[in-house]
This record gives sequence, C-alpha cells and structure tokens, in this order.
Amino acid sequence: MKKVILIPDSFKGTMSSATICSIMEKTIKNHFPKANTVSIPVADGGEGSVDCFLAAVGGEKKYTQVKGVFAETMQVYYGMLKDGETAVIEMACCAGLPLAEGRLNPALATTYGVGELIVNAAKSGAKHIIVGLGGSATNDGGCGAAAAAGIKFINKSGDEFIPTGSTLKDIDTIDNSEMSEILKDVKITAMCDIDNPMYGESGAAYIFAPQKGADEKMVKELDFGLRHLSDVIKKSMGKDVSTLPGGGAAGALGAGMSVFFNAKLQMGIETVLDTVNFDKEIQDTDIVFTGEGKIDNQSLRGKVVIGIARRCRNKSVPVVAVVGDIAKGAQSAFDEGVTAMFSINTVAMDFDKIKPYSKEFLSITMDNIIRFAKAMGK
Amino acid sequence: MKKVILIPDSFKGTMSSATICSIMEKTIKNHFPKANTVSIPVADGGEGSVDCFLAAVGGEKKYTQVKGVFAETMQVYYGMLKDGETAVIEMACCAGLPLAEGRLNPALATTYGVGELIVNAAKSGAKHIIVGLGGSATNDGGCGAAAAAGIKFINKSGDEFIPTGSTLKDIDTIDNSEMSEILKDVKITAMCDIDNPMYGESGAAYIFAPQKGADEKMVKELDFGLRHLSDVIKKSMGKDVSTLPGGGAAGALGAGMSVFFNAKLQMGIETVLDTVNFDKEIQDTDIVFTGEGKIDNQSLRGKVVIGIARRCRNKSVPVVAVVGDIAKGAQSAFDEGVTAMFSINTVAMDFDKIKPYSKEFLSITMDNIIRFAKAMGK
Repeated sequence: MKKVILIPDSFKGTMSSATICSIMEKTIKNHFPKANTVSIPVADGGEGSVDCFLAAVGGEKKYTQVKGVFAETMQVYYGMLKDGETAVIEMACCAGLPLAEGRLNPALATTYGVGELIVNAAKSGAKHIIVGLGGSATNDGGCGAAAAAGIKFINKSGDEFIPTGSTLKDIDTIDNSEMSEILKDVKITAMCDIDNPMYGESGAAYIFAPQKGADEKMVKELDFGLRHLSDVIKKSMGKDVSTLPGGGAAGALGAGMSVFFNAKLQMGIETVLDTVNFDKEIQDTDIVFTGEGKIDNQSLRGKVVIGIARRCRNKSVPVVAVVGDIAKGAQSAFDEGVTAMFSINTVAMDFDKIKPYSKEFLSITMDNIIRFAKAMGK
Repeated sequence: MKKVILIPDSFKGTMSSATICSIMEKTIKNHFPKANTVSIPVADGGEGSVDCFLAAVGGEKKYTQVKGVFAETMQVYYGMLKDGETAVIEMACCAGLPLAEGRLNPALATTYGVGELIVNAAKSGAKHIIVGLGGSATNDGGCGAAAAAGIKFINKSGDEFIPTGSTLKDIDTIDNSEMSEILKDVKITAMCDIDNPMYGESGAAYIFAPQKGADEKMVKELDFGLRHLSDVIKKSMGKDVSTLPGGGAAGALGAGMSVFFNAKLQMGIETVLDTVNFDKEIQDTDIVFTGEGKIDNQSLRGKVVIGIARRCRNKSVPVVAVVGDIAKGAQSAFDEGVTAMFSINTVAMDFDKIKPYSKEFLSITMDNIIRFAKAMGK
C-alpha cells in the first residue's frame, strides 16, 4: 500500500471529518509506515469549512473586519489557499446562527459581511471564491452581500437602502451598474447541498426560518419578501431565479449569489473534489477511504460518498466506505462505484449507547480492513 | 479467488454453523461462480454433530437400537464417515437432556446406550470412534457405557450391577478383564470443550447436575458417588482420573471414556480439524472464513476461531473471522493467527433487536468482504 486517500464525510454528531481522517491515518501508518496518506477533511459549507480546505490543500487564514449578522463590526477570517488565487469563505462566520444566539431575528439579520468578505478576498488576489452557505441566521436573499459589493436597492421614494428580511418588500428597483469592478473577473462558487427554491412551501422562509427564530407570522412575511425580491429581480435585471434549485439556501443567499454574483451553485463535495484536484490525485492511489454516519438510498442523491465513488469509478480506483449504519437501499452504492462498505458497529448496541465508542470502533474497523487488505496483496 | 474454506462456529441462539456456511457460500459464488468453496460446519459434540461431520467429509448414517437414558430401547443413529473407518457418535442421541425432558433424573440416567453404540460402530469396522460429549442428562461417570462394553462393576456382596448416579457409591471393585475384544484396536476420541474435573466444587455434579434435575441434596449424593468411583478406579485399575481436565464432562463420562475406553479427551475443534484433514485442505486455499457469535479473550482458550487460526498461521493462509460482536480482548486474536475480524452488526441496534436480522446482516457483511477482497487482487 503506497498511497491512500482519506476523504470521509463527518459522522453527524459523532466525529468530524478531520477526526475520522486522523484515526484512519494512524491505523494505516501502523501497518504501512511508509504509505503516503492524503487526508482531505470534507467541508460541508458550514462552520469549519475553511479549516477543512486549508487542511486538505494548504494555505493561510486571512483576518479582516466586516459587518456581523446585525451589522456590528467584527473580526473574521477566510481562507486563501496555497495557489494564492482561491479563497474560501464561510457565510456563517459573519452571518451564522451561533452569532445570533439569544437574539435570533431573521427579519433583521444581514449577509452584508459576506459581501464585504467576497470583495476583500478579490482585492487580495482571489480569482476563484468559494462561499459555504451552511448555518445561516439570515433571510435577506443575499441583498446584504450584494449591497456590500456595490449593488443598489432602491425603494419607491427613490432612496437607496440595504434590505433585510423584513424590508425586502420595500425594494422597488435594483441597480447593479456600480457593482464592484474587481469582481468582474472573479469566478464564484457557492457550496450548496440542498435544492429548496427561494420561496414558497419548500422555500427558505417556510422550511428554514423557524429554526432562525421566526414565528408563523414572520415566516409568512419573510416568504412574501422573498417572492417580492424575485419579482423585482425579474423586472430590474431580467433574470428568473424563482425556481432555481438551491436558491433557498442560507435564507435565499443561494439565489442572491446566483443572480447578483453570477455564482455557480454546486454540491459541496463536488467543490471540494474540484478544489483538491481529486481526479488527478487518485491516479496512483491504492484505496480511497470515505464514509458517512449512515449510508442509505439518500446517500445516492449527490452526497459525499457517492460523489467520491463516481469519480473513483471513472479511474478504476477502489473506494471503501467506512460508515456507521449500512441502512436500507445502501446496496445501490455499488452501482455508483463504491467497492465495499464496512460498518463501525463492532458490538450490538443502540446508537445512543454505541456513540461514545465511535472513535474506538472506527479504529478497530479500520485496523481490520487494513490487515485484510494487506493479506489480500495490497 | 479459487478456493475458500468456510468453517464457522455457530452463533449461539442465532445461526447454526451449517446455516452460516450456506450464506457464506452463496455470497462467494455470487462474485466467484467458479470458486471451490469447502463448507465445514463445526460440530460441538452436542446434537447435530454427526450431521456436521457428514456434511464436512461425507459418509452415511447407521441406524441401530440401543438402550436410552432410562434404559428403554430406542432407535438411534451414528455417522460412519466416508473412509469407512471413522465413526461419529453423539452421546446425547441416547443419553441427552431432550430425551429426559419431563422426567429429568441424573441419579438414574445411564450412558449404557453410548457403550452399545461404540461396540456397534467397532463391529461395523470403525477403527476410530469420535464421541461427542455435549448435552448429557446423566451423571454415571460413564459406568453405563463401560458396562455395555463388558466392564464389570461389582458390589460388596459380589454381585455385578450397572451403576447409575445414585448407585456409584455401591461399587466395590471394577473388573475390566472381559472388556469387549473388538475395542482393543480401536482409537477413541472424546470431544470435550470444558476442563471441569470429575468431582468437587467445579466437578460434574456441582456444576452441571442442577440443570439435569438434581436438587441440592442429590447434587451432594452424586458428587459423593463420583468421588467414590474415582477411589475405586484408583484401587481396582491403578489409574488416577480425579483431576483429569474434562473428566467432569457429560456427567463424568469424560473420565469414564478416558479410564474405561482409553479415550483421548480433545477440544471439539481439534477433532474436527483432524478429521477433515484441515492442514492438508488449506494448502491451496486463498482465504479461510471462520466466525463465532462473539470474539473476546475467552475465544483464546482453544475455541473454534483460535483453533483454526493457529493452524492457518502455520501455513500462512489468511483467516478471516466474521463475528457478531468484536468484544474486549479480541485484539489478541491477531497474535494467534487471525488475519482480520469483521462484525455483522451493520446497524446500531441492541442484540435482541438485531438478532432477527442476523442472516441478512451476515450476507451483507460477507458480500462487502468479498467485494473488497476482489478489488484488492484476490
């Protein structure tokens, strides 16, 4: 075994992707001290995503000040990867739920800081900016971020303002003629693992605003605001984002990223794989280890394991999924390129009881897989 | 993958060894239709042992009439293996607990039929007789079996009698001068997985008689009887079986087999491995699959998985243990030659809940192991 890639999803609520990488690496080194183990902790677009990218490809944290979720000034960082041209931003760093704890209010929360970070990264030389959309406290359709990048939102009285959830309904026209010049040559990718649209029954407000502090009345107002924003976008900019899959991500920042920043909405894992140049990386690899808390037929919908397996299949590289549960429908993973799946449940126990042992049981399972691979000739 | 040996222990209360073999075989054939799969269901000396040996090496059932557990005439069978020289007898077929159900009485139960079967097998040409000691209803120290083979038990009045648990105390002398001639050139092996001695605190009566129906008073009498038998054996035959490990097996039939029949007491798995000529069988084998319900530090005490692993290690054949739980201490199995261990607990559930899925989960686990082995080059 000369080269192994470790690229597991987190086991939700149990182990982070980085923790799993580290346990896997240790086990492999026990048996193959000279093996080249490439750890790629998988970012999901939420908190920790910058760290994941930096761990996977190297680079540095860039610190700066931006406006926070309720427009207060705050210190944040983004990641500039080692190519000096790719920046990674977590929207949650300045507009995330933890920042709003105790004062949750999606009617007032803003993504303004996200726009500032995008401009800042571009000024620092980024030609490609990855924006993680996970964990938002906002519902402003990305208007805050757009305003920070020079896009003007004007009300019926002709006054410019920065819309938030409650004032989206007041937008009369949008003027993007003074959009920050520096962003013109910058490619922006928004990491987005959901396909909810901007508004409506399965839109940002109805599905996600309650957990951001909205009551029933506010949800309706927020939904109305987003619907209105969609109409104004159509009228002012000639673009229709009303049904864009993922438009509803991060309080409809998904739609905003698309329409205001010309961003591509992409599954998080695809963004990670592209960024680490996965297709090239696997060419001389003996085994790719991935995994997730539970593999089932949901896993087939573009989630981490399957995203990886599809690429490995193209290059005929074995990909082993080390998982918590192998649930109903998991067998279809073989069709997508998964070579084999192993559960870390080495003792028959219910999840709440087995959870504290997850690191130990992952280690035991990996140890046995590596021992077996060795005996089979790798 | 050209040749695979399947030799799992049963998963107690869940799947028989034969069932496990059949699931394993099916999975392997799915991926390697031309592979030679050798199934060796493991006999434990109890009910089903004859079937296991016949399935593993071929042969036929021989039917005959002998005396049952309370001396009633009954139809039983033993196995004559295909070499025509090796017979397998389950003591439980004529002296087992199920036969005594509803009338349990270890003071009266006899192993007479076991002796008849031994003589019968020898008359049919057996040169090696394997006697499984599991599941007895008796506590006669094997005196019944010995009597059937011509050994005389004589009381103080000079009368010959056939002792049972309650009358062991009446034996004054033992006369083995008229032992059946035909047994002289027959090698006898008794399968015995426990090391309890004939009598005393950890002896046959104290440890096993209660489950055979003895109350506290009877346990003491039975223990006294066995102690007396041991004394008479010493006096009459000049042999000391008082501390023989396994002497307490099957109501001290273990001791009786040793002293009256010159039998070798041997771990069941060693008997199976010798009988199937395992050391030769594994020489051109890619993988040996074994398993048990739970692998732990108890497994190291000569149980099935370890017995197999030790022999595989000698020939450098990979041996994979597919198990229920991988429990504390299981890691030491690697030192004994186990290549890798995989648990069939593919979903986090307590044992009582996961039990009904054991066949399905074994199948899933085997499928993944075989897929992985294939990808690794086998």
